[in-house]
Amino acid sequence: MTVATVRASAAVIDRHAYLDAAPLQPGDRVRFVAPSGLGSAESLERAVGAYRDWGLDVVVGEHVLDPHPRASYLAGTDDARRQDLVDAWLDPDADAVVCVRGGYGAMRLLDGIDWERMRGAALRRDGRPKLLTGSSDITALHEAFRVRLDVPTLFCPMPGNDVFRDSATIRDDVRRWLFEPWGGRELVGPKTEVLVPGVAAGRFTGGNLALLAGGLGAPEARDPAGGILFLEDVDEETYRLDGFLVALARAGRLAAASGIVLGSWHKCGDLAAVRALAEEMLPAFGVPVLWEQGFGHDPDALSIPLNVDGVLRAEDGGIRLSVGGVL
Amino acid sequence: MTVATVRASAAVIDRHAYLDAAPLQPGDRVRFVAPSGLGSAESLERAVGAYRDWGLDVVVGEHVLDPHPRASYLAGTDDARRQDLVDAWLDPDADAVVCVRGGYGAMRLLDGIDWERMRGAALRRDGRPKLLTGSSDITALHEAFRVRLDVPTLFCPMPGNDVFRDSATIRDDVRRWLFEPWGGRELVGPKTEVLVPGVAAGRFTGGNLALLAGGLGAPEARDPAGGILFLEDVDEETYRLDGFLVALARAGRLAAASGIVLGSWHKCGDLAAVRALAEEMLPAFGVPVLWEQGFGHDPDALSIPLNVDGVLRAEDGGIRLSVGGVL
Repeated sequence: MTVATVRASAAVIDRHAYLDAAPLQPGDRVRFVAPSGLGSAESLERAVGAYRDWGLDVVVGEHVLDPHPRASYLAGTDDARRQDLVDAWLDPDADAVVCVRGGYGAMRLLDGIDWERMRGAALRRDGRPKLLTGSSDITALHEAFRVRLDVPTLFCPMPGNDVFRDSATIRDDVRRWLFEPWGGRELVGPKTEVLVPGVAAGRFTGGNLALLAGGLGAPEARDPAGGILFLEDVDEETYRLDGFLVALARAGRLAAASGIVLGSWHKCGDLAAVRALAEEMLPAFGVPVLWEQGFGHDPDALSIPLNVDGVLRAEDGGIRLSVGGVL
Repeated sequence: MTVATVRASAAVIDRHAYLDAAPLQPGDRVRFVAPSGLGSAESLERAVGAYRDWGLDVVVGEHVLDPHPRASYLAGTDDARRQDLVDAWLDPDADAVVCVRGGYGAMRLLDGIDWERMRGAALRRDGRPKLLTGSSDITALHEAFRVRLDVPTLFCPMPGNDVFRDSATIRDDVRRWLFEPWGGRELVGPKTEVLVPGVAAGRFTGGNLALLAGGLGAPEARDPAGGILFLEDVDEETYRLDGFLVALARAGRLAAASGIVLGSWHKCGDLAAVRALAEEMLPAFGVPVLWEQGFGHDPDALSIPLNVDGVLRAEDGGIRLSVGGVL
């Protein structure tokens, strides 16, 4: 399917709207929310400063610095975090909703959201879809926004995280995804290798492996997606990654994929063991597989656009992973 | 539903066959298998000795001490572990299949099993169903055997584990479940408390929380079970337990339960934090909930029969959790 036909069939929300025109420009409004864990006031201030330096109109959610009455790992109650997320998305002047950090907790919000109302507010004043950004635990939101709203999203390091402060590579890459058009853009992982050669086209989906596995019983997982599946994780032992992959396989998500792109496995112990696991399990699905595409929790992690179509070529002539286009 | 009507509807496999007569007697054949991790020859020898001391005819699977070519956490290849499990179950002289240890790996075997053939071999020579025993990672087998074969199983500490060697409480309890009838037997947790009062009846299901969450996308999870749900875990941080519970909730498994019985949370950090999580999440389901019923990974963990009906009474007059009977 070409991008043109995809556009024609998406009468209301054009998930390829960012191929020709950048998602954001200076002056646009971005709403900061914390659907998962709690960060410090200092990290929030730094995050706001960074996005304001890019000329954006940053509005911070009311509950972003709230503690949770039970759990130190959550930023505010479920109701408070959900309210910030919903308020941000429903804001008619919002252009993007930026998750300032991950951790754990986004999946706790999903069943209480009025998705019809969210869908009715998915378009910006210019008619293009609003943009959700974030990674790690925010994978739960990427999945729900894809299935429920069918908007494009950006899987990217978050401004409240130390890596965003510490890595110019991360900041430059996020800025380009926000302020430049996506069409034809190549995703170049500095250490990418081919595990299984081949070519594939399809919608980019996925994110954090543990979060994808944790959502397999949820309503939004009833459709096993398909397309080019991105997977990464952090701080997990090999046997756990094994279990997450087996869970995805048993749910049909790996068999549905047209290609598989593995990102970084930061703090996941012996990388050779993780690679051996991937080499044992993934060739059976008969689709191209890339190793170490450089997104996820790497200190210089690259960003990945999700719910847009793209093309993966892993051939003798080299690797090419790009947004938009046709096979 | 009374036990009598349950029996009438189970024409072929009577999952309540052990209520009136003990599962095993001296001379019965038990087949030892290792569907998950690899144990030492010494621990296997000790396990065999213990069961032979009970007068059982122990037959050890061919691959129980095999290493896995990739992963030190697996006992033999998937094919080898699966073959041992299937061979054991298909043995017409087998009375029970005993998993000697857990770890990780049982879920890797499930999709390659011919369940029709397993179902055809589910009865012993005396017409009663064969008995599967084990815990922890073996939860994946308990779930599959319940859904695919509808046989009773025993969630119990395994003979290759150190706790079985070290705890007379464990050995005595396992021995009683194997050599005494189950009907009317009370499950008495030494530290059990009521989190939510009430009465419930239903089929006992569940086991290790992480394993249950990991199976939510799998074919056997399409029926959300119902009945009295047992949950325990080991060596997990609170936020992970939170995620597993949310995953079960989002899949409908908690809402389907008529009662919830929490076991031990061994090495799960601050027990007060785990309890606060349970107290926050579980009352919403409107069913009785017990705290610390003493099964799981506790050094003196009690055994729990699964896929048999039972009754839970958590009232002012005290706690009663028993096998069989009517409300």
